[in-house]
Amino acid sequence: MTSTDAEASSRVGPYVGRPVARREDERLMSGRGRYLADLAAGALSVVFVRSAVPHALINTIDTSAAVGMPGVVGVYTGADLGLVNDHIAELHVPHPAFVDATAFRMAEQRLAIMPTDRVHYVGQPLVALIAVDRYTAEDAMEAVDITYSPLAPCLDADAALREDATPIHRHLRDNEAASIHIEFGGLTPDVTADLTVEGTYRIGRHGAVPLEGRGVLARVDARRVSVWTSTQIPHMVRRGICEATGWATEEVRVAVPDVGGGFGTKANVYAEEIVIAALARRTGRDLVWVEDRQEHLVSAAQGRDQTHRTRLAVDGEGQIVHWADDFTVDIGAGGLWVAGVVANTAIHALGPYRVPRARITGRAAFTNKTITAQYRGAGRPEACFALERSLDDAARRLGLSGAEIRRRNLLTAEDLPYPRPLPYRDGVDVVFDGGDYAGCLEAALELLPVEEIEALQDDHPDLQVGHGVGCYLEATGRGPYETGRVRLMSTGQFEVSSGAASAGQAHETAFAQVAADALRVDLARVRVRQADTDLVEHGIGTFASRSAVLAGSAIRKAADEVRTLATARAAELLGAPVHAVELNDGIFRSHIGEPGSGGVGWDDVARAAAPGGAHEELGPLDVTEVFRPQTVTWTMGAHAAVVGVHRRTGAVRVLAYAVAHEGGVEINPQVVEGQVIGGVAQGIGGTLMEEFRYSPQGQPQSTTFADYLLPSTCDVPEVRVRHLGVDTPGNPLGVRGAGESGTIAVAAAVAAAVEHALGDRVQVTETPISPALLRTALRQEQRA
Amino acid sequence: MTSTDAEASSRVGPYVGRPVARREDERLMSGRGRYLADLAAGALSVVFVRSAVPHALINTIDTSAAVGMPGVVGVYTGADLGLVNDHIAELHVPHPAFVDATAFRMAEQRLAIMPTDRVHYVGQPLVALIAVDRYTAEDAMEAVDITYSPLAPCLDADAALREDATPIHRHLRDNEAASIHIEFGGLTPDVTADLTVEGTYRIGRHGAVPLEGRGVLARVDARRVSVWTSTQIPHMVRRGICEATGWATEEVRVAVPDVGGGFGTKANVYAEEIVIAALARRTGRDLVWVEDRQEHLVSAAQGRDQTHRTRLAVDGEGQIVHWADDFTVDIGAGGLWVAGVVANTAIHALGPYRVPRARITGRAAFTNKTITAQYRGAGRPEACFALERSLDDAARRLGLSGAEIRRRNLLTAEDLPYPRPLPYRDGVDVVFDGGDYAGCLEAALELLPVEEIEALQDDHPDLQVGHGVGCYLEATGRGPYETGRVRLMSTGQFEVSSGAASAGQAHETAFAQVAADALRVDLARVRVRQADTDLVEHGIGTFASRSAVLAGSAIRKAADEVRTLATARAAELLGAPVHAVELNDGIFRSHIGEPGSGGVGWDDVARAAAPGGAHEELGPLDVTEVFRPQTVTWTMGAHAAVVGVHRRTGAVRVLAYAVAHEGGVEINPQVVEGQVIGGVAQGIGGTLMEEFRYSPQGQPQSTTFADYLLPSTCDVPEVRVRHLGVDTPGNPLGVRGAGESGTIAVAAAVAAAVEHALGDRVQVTETPISPALLRTALRQEQRA
Repeated sequence: MTSTDAEASSRVGPYVGRPVARREDERLMSGRGRYLADLAAGALSVVFVRSAVPHALINTIDTSAAVGMPGVVGVYTGADLGLVNDHIAELHVPHPAFVDATAFRMAEQRLAIMPTDRVHYVGQPLVALIAVDRYTAEDAMEAVDITYSPLAPCLDADAALREDATPIHRHLRDNEAASIHIEFGGLTPDVTADLTVEGTYRIGRHGAVPLEGRGVLARVDARRVSVWTSTQIPHMVRRGICEATGWATEEVRVAVPDVGGGFGTKANVYAEEIVIAALARRTGRDLVWVEDRQEHLVSAAQGRDQTHRTRLAVDGEGQIVHWADDFTVDIGAGGLWVAGVVANTAIHALGPYRVPRARITGRAAFTNKTITAQYRGAGRPEACFALERSLDDAARRLGLSGAEIRRRNLLTAEDLPYPRPLPYRDGVDVVFDGGDYAGCLEAALELLPVEEIEALQDDHPDLQVGHGVGCYLEATGRGPYETGRVRLMSTGQFEVSSGAASAGQAHETAFAQVAADALRVDLARVRVRQADTDLVEHGIGTFASRSAVLAGSAIRKAADEVRTLATARAAELLGAPVHAVELNDGIFRSHIGEPGSGGVGWDDVARAAAPGGAHEELGPLDVTEVFRPQTVTWTMGAHAAVVGVHRRTGAVRVLAYAVAHEGGVEINPQVVEGQVIGGVAQGIGGTLMEEFRYSPQGQPQSTTFADYLLPSTCDVPEVRVRHLGVDTPGNPLGVRGAGESGTIAVAAAVAAAVEHALGDRVQVTETPISPALLRTALRQEQRA
Repeated sequence: MTSTDAEASSRVGPYVGRPVARREDERLMSGRGRYLADLAAGALSVVFVRSAVPHALINTIDTSAAVGMPGVVGVYTGADLGLVNDHIAELHVPHPAFVDATAFRMAEQRLAIMPTDRVHYVGQPLVALIAVDRYTAEDAMEAVDITYSPLAPCLDADAALREDATPIHRHLRDNEAASIHIEFGGLTPDVTADLTVEGTYRIGRHGAVPLEGRGVLARVDARRVSVWTSTQIPHMVRRGICEATGWATEEVRVAVPDVGGGFGTKANVYAEEIVIAALARRTGRDLVWVEDRQEHLVSAAQGRDQTHRTRLAVDGEGQIVHWADDFTVDIGAGGLWVAGVVANTAIHALGPYRVPRARITGRAAFTNKTITAQYRGAGRPEACFALERSLDDAARRLGLSGAEIRRRNLLTAEDLPYPRPLPYRDGVDVVFDGGDYAGCLEAALELLPVEEIEALQDDHPDLQVGHGVGCYLEATGRGPYETGRVRLMSTGQFEVSSGAASAGQAHETAFAQVAADALRVDLARVRVRQADTDLVEHGIGTFASRSAVLAGSAIRKAADEVRTLATARAAELLGAPVHAVELNDGIFRSHIGEPGSGGVGWDDVARAAAPGGAHEELGPLDVTEVFRPQTVTWTMGAHAAVVGVHRRTGAVRVLAYAVAHEGGVEINPQVVEGQVIGGVAQGIGGTLMEEFRYSPQGQPQSTTFADYLLPSTCDVPEVRVRHLGVDTPGNPLGVRGAGESGTIAVAAAVAAAVEHALGDRVQVTETPISPALLRTALRQEQRA
């Protein structure tokens, strides 16, 4: 079902497919970005007093001392706000066909916006305090007195899911937030397998930790509240505000300034967004809250935190006979996208392999840790880690290399498209629509030739060098839809907007490329505006590697429609029949009549549409289109890593890294490459360094950058990227999503490389990979 | 050509024609309006160093001392700004037919945005200074050192227009800013007249002086500049900014917050707006300038300042035989709307009378006084004063009352519609389209019965009481066009916007009434948003009594189109043919099939249009329409005033006032009445108190409210208003403009009443009416 090369190349235009320089960089790289905090001047400062304990009944919240302090404008608890005090839960409920096929269940979440009776995690907002400035506000916070009756915290998914566990949410009978069960191929007697390996694999709790934390600014104009927030999902934030406040959609505008990284932690509707919107209307004042780093590390949504119990059965050749993965997800006190993460994990558990029989079971648990969101990959890296680690385990036992066992299982060009006996979350049966997954692995391996790996060992005598691979398949471009709007302005320039909100993904460049090609104009004519509910009334947002696919396609549709409508108008201006008119290089010309005779430009069409023009009655050319994909498109990728383990300290250094991926048309290859490289960097962080740790009492331990370790440029090698352009017919651009690709297989590939470096003397079963574990293995080796 | 009563009443709907309470008042009356200064928090303060002399060469502008002061962010002269340093001039050039018929000429204006070589009036902005706050900025202004070589100021229009006068603008050969000549009916030998009266009538320089002064806020987002300004004409401000900076339209957004009065002084594109927009981009900072009162009184555009030399010839019955008016307008250093004021004055010089022959000549002169704009009435009150005073003079000489001479000249129901042998500025031949002008006068007189006037004299023994009348005709609803936009939002609510910008005219209420009727919904469903170039790309603005007529009609057209489109969609949802579907009370029902069976509401149509709905592919219902009237519609009015002149001081007090006017359909009678009453108040100010005086050296003398006297509530009596609903076919609403009506005949009626009070011992030929002049007459009377 993949398009032919001719089709694919027809999708590449003067701009689409070219590495056009990121237009936003002129601004962003010169310090002229306008992030949320840059809008804050003049607004009163809001700070949140947050729960100091992980699980407790609230006895009293005494704000009286704070209220009277000089410079304090107001102090509000949840009781003061009159909000529908149940935080919204899952926004996208899976299709019934999926629910039926997977026995999918999810609990109703009711995490209070600002609770008054009970707290569920350290960092939960309890009191909003408004003051003339941040200093005053921070001082006054200290005067808010909250007393608690502590309850035993639950900090472990397994414990939370035990039948006798006390539910931490009182409206629920247990702590199960969601569950899923996928089974196909029938029960497989072990006798058909030559080898069965079992394992327990754990991906630790880490998260996005973007350069810019969260932040919200709200202003009131008449009764209308404008909210600027550093979010990936402005339309959903608007919905969340409306649901909690009872306001009509029209009463709220949500707009997004420049955003310094989202990665899923900003694809959430936060209590802070709702509270600040509500308080802005209540006080009539401009209010701003800018998260500080400690606040971010304690209260912004985190990710991962999964445990997979696996059982992989293979035949004597290493070919998969049966695959079982029973996983749990610790979603902390709650998560807007819990269903997404559980379903994502399960559906990605099959990998890009010929898996004839499988049994995948997943459960998400509520615990008294910080809330979670769909952090980059959102279940994909976790599922990948479990399956890839199991394959490596089997390979070792069969005496095969990691590459070899994958070669024997990966789907090839002949296998594809490859149907799977289950529906995707949208209810459409899953079909892996790629080109040649095995070929993709070979491409990754070629990027890191053996002689280069050997040279790396020679160059680093203090390190033990090893290499490993990991493969993944990523469902991208998930629905239900996205909107795109293209306006011909009166000057003949174009304005493009959509429901997708850039958090660094270069929408200003990529979407302009799409529109410029469809409109056949110079890129300079097209301006992309950042997401704003006033620009497009409907939208979903940027997450799940979906913006290029969905918003890109919606913009393409809208631009095509503008071109079609404009051609008819141009024909009228030319006095020619529509079918005779063609648009090239921004000029509409008729091929009837004198060749070389004048055409009309977009400027002329624009002038005609303006008041006083020939098409005044037809009005402006301003088209909003919805793109609704039939289902997702599957992006294949293979990662290859070379690591060095320090012989004395056990510290792991990634020396070389390669990614080959079957993207579709790349609107802007430079942008895609940047996303892949960034994803690898973030993957390295999660694999080797980053972890949100909690004390046995439930106190967060990773509250500064001294404790929560982020990779720096020194920790990330040059990443080689090879793009295998496998077009998809699933959207008019032929694009596949790639936003998460770089992250998914890092833990798997690095873990394999570490094991290889240590001569398989250690089994890496969890992240972050512990130098202590490796030191033990190294000592054994030195002793041996 | 007036509509029948039946037609007129068909135009009145559930809301249109009703005194719906002003929706904006909940906000504005409770202190929750958001005026420009309310948006200022957080922005750096801009102040302008202004010319201290009326006419001079600039030798040096030394900003070096200011630049170094703590808290000063930047100091900019015109030389620093790189603007196309010629202030834009007239935006609406009259139609060639008008130009030909009236020998209309206007000079090219090139008033510099911030001059570096030469100043033309005291208050002209020369240096923009940015500082961290207003206090710092004001202090630093003192450190800017400007040296001048003074030139002789020209402060008198007659002197300026003398052939040997030195042109104050170097690119021009004389000081004539515009001129006009209208003549029809042929030369009339004086022999055909029984009486000829000559006079010189002067309306002093006064102006809008709104409660809120000017103010501009600019913010930069990427390279796009958003400008909030207290203006009546956001689209023209955008154009002015683009012309001066060379930016594309798309690079600038101009939005209007709540505005505390405009009255024409804010229907101007100001240098301050351009400079602040340019500096915002240059500095990347939020910048705000809020005019202070002294600044306003010195540098905001002023108005009036006309002298009319008249010659009225009447027959023995007092019927007009010939009317000649030769007027000059002192437009100060320049005026965006100079052509408008000169043409307006000339075309309104004919009044609502049977004038068989006329010769109207006007010239506008550049002088070294403050710039001018089309202050409420914009030539109409001045023309009215000259003609009405001449009629009163003739009446006295013929022994007729003021009412009687008007009865003999006013057009009656039989005369109307009444063509005039000249084109209007839009090139369309003038036809007075009213109902019965003589009847309108009687209606005004009835509002102030003789016995009541006598009672007023009895009640005020310290005053000498008199009464007078004045009539006027006002061209309203002038083109070229206005835009209206109506959006059906996803909740089934409507959002309405237009190019008209409310400065207090209750657009939020009146436009919602228009839309609600067309859409057949409850008013609560419709929200009107204040003008913003991001909401409608094109627009003209609010001035010249045009918004109800043009924007109201454009909104009506757009709402009608939304209703038509929605009916087709509803028919599809109902499975009924379109012709069978009717919309009533917000529900579309088919009259085919089961009576009483369900209908679909606007909510259903909205849901269907939203993503996921049945009409997703059709997209949102969002219609922008342009209304372009064929020509203006003429509103007749008659004013009657009762005044008391204090026997000792000569101070004039207006004791009673009545206005009868031939409005068309009044969208909201309460709003129209409010406008008429406000207009009378402003007229009383200009007639009795307000004056921008200049010293012989050209220094402004009216720079505080101790010098520039405004009427208070004590100075304005209850105003009785009678509305004679004379519908017009010129627009779909049947409305006539009324925004200026209240102002036009005040000076004429009050002057007549003052003369009457003093037994015609004084002739009032100029405003403000001088108590000193009256004291002289009173003393003569007491001596007699």
